Parts: sequence; structure tokens; C-alpha cells
Amino acid sequence: MKTRTIENVGEFGLIEFIKKHNTKPKKYHNIYIDIGDDCFSFNSHKNSKYIVTTDILIENIHFKRDWATAKQIGQKAIEVNVSDIASMGNTKPLYAFISMGIPKSTSVKFVKELFNSIKNTCNKYDIHLSGGDTVCAKDITISVTLIGVCYDKPISRTGAKNGDLIFVTGTFGDSCAGLEILSNNKKNLTVYEKNLIKKHLVSQARLKEANIISQNINVTSMTDSSDGLFKSIELLTEKKGAVIYMDKIPLSENLIKYSNKNYNKLYNYALFGGEEFELVFTINKKDKNKLEKLLPGATCIGYINNSKVTYLQNGKTKNVKYNGYKHF
Amino acid sequence: MKTRTIENVGEFGLIEFIKKHNTKPKKYHNIYIDIGDDCFSFNSHKNSKYIVTTDILIENIHFKRDWATAKQIGQKAIEVNVSDIASMGNTKPLYAFISMGIPKSTSVKFVKELFNSIKNTCNKYDIHLSGGDTVCAKDITISVTLIGVCYDKPISRTGAKNGDLIFVTGTFGDSCAGLEILSNNKKNLTVYEKNLIKKHLVSQARLKEANIISQNINVTSMTDSSDGLFKSIELLTEKKGAVIYMDKIPLSENLIKYSNKNYNKLYNYALFGGEEFELVFTINKKDKNKLEKLLPGATCIGYINNSKVTYLQNGKTKNVKYNGYKHF
Repeated sequence: MKTRTIENVGEFGLIEFIKKHNTKPKKYHNIYIDIGDDCFSFNSHKNSKYIVTTDILIENIHFKRDWATAKQIGQKAIEVNVSDIASMGNTKPLYAFISMGIPKSTSVKFVKELFNSIKNTCNKYDIHLSGGDTVCAKDITISVTLIGVCYDKPISRTGAKNGDLIFVTGTFGDSCAGLEILSNNKKNLTVYEKNLIKKHLVSQARLKEANIISQNINVTSMTDSSDGLFKSIELLTEKKGAVIYMDKIPLSENLIKYSNKNYNKLYNYALFGGEEFELVFTINKKDKNKLEKLLPGATCIGYINNSKVTYLQNGKTKNVKYNGYKHF
Repeated sequence: MKTRTIENVGEFGLIEFIKKHNTKPKKYHNIYIDIGDDCFSFNSHKNSKYIVTTDILIENIHFKRDWATAKQIGQKAIEVNVSDIASMGNTKPLYAFISMGIPKSTSVKFVKELFNSIKNTCNKYDIHLSGGDTVCAKDITISVTLIGVCYDKPISRTGAKNGDLIFVTGTFGDSCAGLEILSNNKKNLTVYEKNLIKKHLVSQARLKEANIISQNINVTSMTDSSDGLFKSIELLTEKKGAVIYMDKIPLSENLIKYSNKNYNKLYNYALFGGEEFELVFTINKKDKNKLEKLLPGATCIGYINNSKVTYLQNGKTKNVKYNGYKHF
């Protein structure tokens, strides 16, 4: 049987599908004109601050259809943006605008699965799919803009003070190792290799955790780790310094097994990996106990100072230089 | 001399350039956290409605670098979105979010010109460049999301009533004829051919006109003509009908000369052309005189009825079927 392609159903067929299967807005979305007009329109939420982020994913740059399912690609396109919203503190993502470039030859099945996954991930966070654009392209291109509301002061990257403790959620490096395993096209994968791949393909944003801590503690600065932990630390310490205890950086059992306890490799994954959506944030040290009760999974990996960023391994200074992904 | 490419300067070189040459926000932009953090953040404008639109332009689909300069491409990327904002009525565009995919081999000169053009077009409308993403891609890809504020009720496409008059700004079909001339790769162009090409490459949004009419008249429905006049009429008459006097559709001298008064060709350009940013809108007939004083350039091309859409040429019904651009 011949595969039905996007060229067969056309733009209007695609738009009809999207219309029928869209998210259902909630009352607090405060919609004035919904998707389908020249603009989407919403009433302002009194005294609130809006937060906006945008990310673009391109096939063969950010994902490969050989490795990832349509479902996983759709999830990632939303999670990466929710992660940016989360890192602003006590927030709620509200409206997603999605522009897609799709090759003519793409199967209708793939596009429907991709769209359904975007919709389901939006539903998970009560995000309303509010607008977009679909065009022809050589590679699958997904550009997402996400607008959210922040109930308190948004937490920027730059508010950390001398002496503040640096905390992180989760573990680091799994996604990067997962990508490496996929790139090497390895057969007969072990359980831990499969877990690392899974972490690469479907990382989850830490929206709930960001809400919990920022509602209860004065978080002085925060970012996510989507460009790697090293980069996150660099962003939080602009014009400041820090001491980072490398031995405290949380690593998964899967990663430790995969790297065969080769610590140089391990820290390379953990510091420069990226494509993970952990929170990296700072708090005043008086809030340490409170935080550890609120978020038992969080780990203190160091503190802010007024000098420069120093990485310590077994008490000794380690020279760490940027070794992460370059876009160009 | 070897051309400096984006690969040579890298992502951080590009971001540094953008930071140095960004727009300067005005007080009414109400910014809480500016570009460069995980999210951009703005304080809500009291009692306002926000409007949001998004469009994606892809090289060799929406433009060709052989035909258009970086300056023209940048302009178009902003104007197409301003046009959507304009068609909501009494509006002000405020924040632009721009994601770009750029091939590694692109010259730094081209990217800087493109960015400067985006910035200058934003400045023209007092739009603040508020966020974005730059990634590597096979073709130049520009995804723009524009957020604006609407001071009155946003004007949707669906509010026209039986008997309302249909008005348009400007003329139709030039952009489409310009694209045809470019596609045919014709040498020794006449003045009117050059003018048509110019109209294709640099159409301007009708923000000022939209503001003037919606501040003074009850505009019952409005859209822009970016997908062609025929499509605009279809959008304004969903579940309604209309009579359209084809002889009243405004055409430029350039287009009349180019089509050699072949009326079939002429109406093909004018009805199905698209890539023009004229306003197509409806008003109650009692407001006709007021409108013609406010906007002497506007033309009445027909009226809304409860039947179906009928096109009349020299008083006779003409069978007009969709013959426009298909995305897939």
C-alpha cells in the first residue's frame, strides 16, 4: 500500500486535523480570540508578569528520525521550552505557538503522531496550543514559542550573592552518553545503555520542582541545564566566582556503569553534556535545611564566591575548560 | 580574501553581535527581564488584550538569496507578522522573538545584514527584539513570533453582518506578478516590471491605516491579504455570502501594463497572488462616508449577504475557483 504523504492531504487537510485534535483551553487561559484568526488574543492576567521563551529544533541537527519516534520528538519540542519557563520560578506555562516545516514526502502517519505528541505534552502542563504556521521544508523544523505567567518575581540568572549555595536537581550526563550510544550505532545494548538512550530521547522539565522551591524559599538565581552543567554554572556566576565540588555532582548508576568509572569521561558527560532539563539554582545558606526537606532529591554542589570559578576534585583544583556542543 | 563564515565566528560571536546591536526598549515595553535570560519577562499592561502571531520563512520556499538581499529578507520576516497584528485593529506590536537556522557556510556579512534589517524594521514599529534562538540548518530559516497589545476589542475575521460593505487598502496582484518575473529570470526589465519585483520583495504592513480606521469606525471584521484577496474574502464570509465587483478591485498601472490588459491574467494575479499586506475589512454602510474621508485610498469592492460569494464582472456572474499557492 502506498504511504499517504502530506502532499496528498495538503495544508488544509493538515489544518483540519489540527483543529479537530487541539487542546481544550481552561478558564484561566483567559482567551479572547482562539487559534485560527490572524492573531491569537488573550486578556491580561491582573498584576502578573509574563514570561516568554522560544526554541527551534531541526532534523539531523537536534534529532534524527532514525533514532527518535515522532512521539519523542514532539515531547522534546515542548519539554525544552517548559524547562526554560520552569527556571523562572513560580510559573505556569499557558500558550504555545508552533511553526512547523515539513517535507512534502513526510507520511501523514508521522505528522499526526508528531502533532498528537505535541498536544499530549501540552495537555500534561495545561498549555493551550494557540497558534502556528505549517510550511514546506527540506527537513522537519519545529519552532516553539511558549508564553507563561509568573506569579512572583521571575528568578533571573544573575541574582546570586557571595556565600549562596549552589543546588541542582537530578543527575547529569545521561542524555549526552545516550546520544553517544545512538551515534555509535551499537547493537545488543545493555539495560543501562538503554536507560541512557531513553534519558536522551525523553527528558522531562522540572516545572513542579521549580514551583515548589520558589513558592517556599528565596531562590536567588536559577537556570536549567539544557546547555550542560558547566554552562549553567558559567551563567549563574557572571562577574562572580564559585567553588564546585566535582565529587558532589550527582551521577546516575547507569552513567557510572557505562563510563566504567573512568572519571575523566564521567565528568565530560556530566559537565558538558546538555540536553537535560535539570534546575541549577542558588539559595542563601540559612535556607539549606528547609530546601533539603522540600526537595530531598536536590544536591548542593558548591557555593558562590567573589573570586573565580574553581572546580575541586578530591580537594584538589582541577583545570576545567569548555568542551561542549558548538552550534556552528 | 576568504569570506568569513558563521562557522568562523561561532554562536557566541553571533550572540555578542546581536547583544551589541539590539533595539533599545521604550518605557511602555514594561520589561522586567530583558533578552538573554532563560525567558524574557514583561509586566502586564493593565486591562489590555494581548495578540500573538507567528510565521516561519524558509529559504528556497519563501525567498531565494539569488533574488532577495539580506535586507529585503529581514524586512519581510517582520512585515509579514506586523501585518497580522495590524489586522486586529487598534494595536501596537511590542515584542519580537526570532529563531534562526543558519547554514555553517553563510557569510558573516550576510547574517549581519539580515540581523540589521530585522532590527531596523523592528525599530520602525518600536518593536523590541526580546528573545530568540540561533542554530545550524541546511537552509536559512527565520521563525518570528510577535506579541502586541490591542487597546480596544481585537477585530476578528468573523464579525461581518449582512449588508456590511467590503473595503480594501492598496492594490492587488503586484507581488505575485513580481515573483513571476523573478522566476522567469527575465533580462532587460522595463520600469513597470522592476516596480512589480520591488513590490514582491518589500511589501509594507498597513499598521497605520488599521489604527486609523479602527480608532474611528466600528470595523466589523478584518484580515490581511497575505494569502491573496480571494482567500481573505473566503475568511471574512465563512457561513455568509458576498457580492464582489471584480471591476472595482484596485489594480496598479504597473500590473495593467504587465498583463497587457489580459483580464483573465490580471484577475488571476489580483485574486490569488498573496504575499501582499493589504487590509480587507467590513464596515456598516452608514460609515461609508466617514471611512472614505479617513482613508481616501481605500476602495469598496462589494458587500456581505446571506447567500454565497458571487463574483461579478461587467454585471455578469463569473465562476471563480481557488487557484492560489499550495504549501504542500
